[in-house]
Amino acid sequence: MFVILVYDFGEKRVGKALKIARKYLHWVQNSVLEGEISNANYTKLKMELRSIMNSEEDSVIFYTFRTKNYSKREEFGLKKGGDENIL
Amino acid sequence: MFVILVYDFGEKRVGKALKIARKYLHWVQNSVLEGEISNANYTKLKMELRSIMNSEEDSVIFYTFRTKNYSKREEFGLKKGGDENIL
Repeated sequence: MFVILVYDFGEKRVGKALKIARKYLHWVQNSVLEGEISNANYTKLKMELRSIMNSEEDSVIFYTFRTKNYSKREEFGLKKGGDENIL
Repeated sequence: MFVILVYDFGEKRVGKALKIARKYLHWVQNSVLEGEISNANYTKLKMELRSIMNSEEDSVIFYTFRTKNYSKREEFGLKKGGDENIL
């Protein structure tokens, strides 16, 4: 499936969160990653993020899609994800 | 159509960007908004954001979908959008 992950973590945890998320997805903007992921890895990613998050301060949203074909992406301005944003 | 907007604007422009985006979409996380939008309003929203953005520093990504039915959303932690995140 295709996943878009947006997160907002406190300063102390944000680096860890990005490190975990990058193991599974491509970084596209400051706190946004996306990519194809298996069900097994999606479960792992959620578990890892939840294990470091402070659920009273941090926030994670996953948008999941059966395939990428349903979506169109338009991007303006600086491409912060570097090469990684070209899927 | 259904739109997810993620943005990353410099400090001087971020308040303006949120103000513009909230005219059209629901705020769900620090720099993430989503919602149903007409083609005409989508064009307006893009124009307004581009008019205030510094394209060497700021970044905007729009994910667009024909309907919301294609997506599933999973959310963990703090609900930063308040009531607005219940669509």
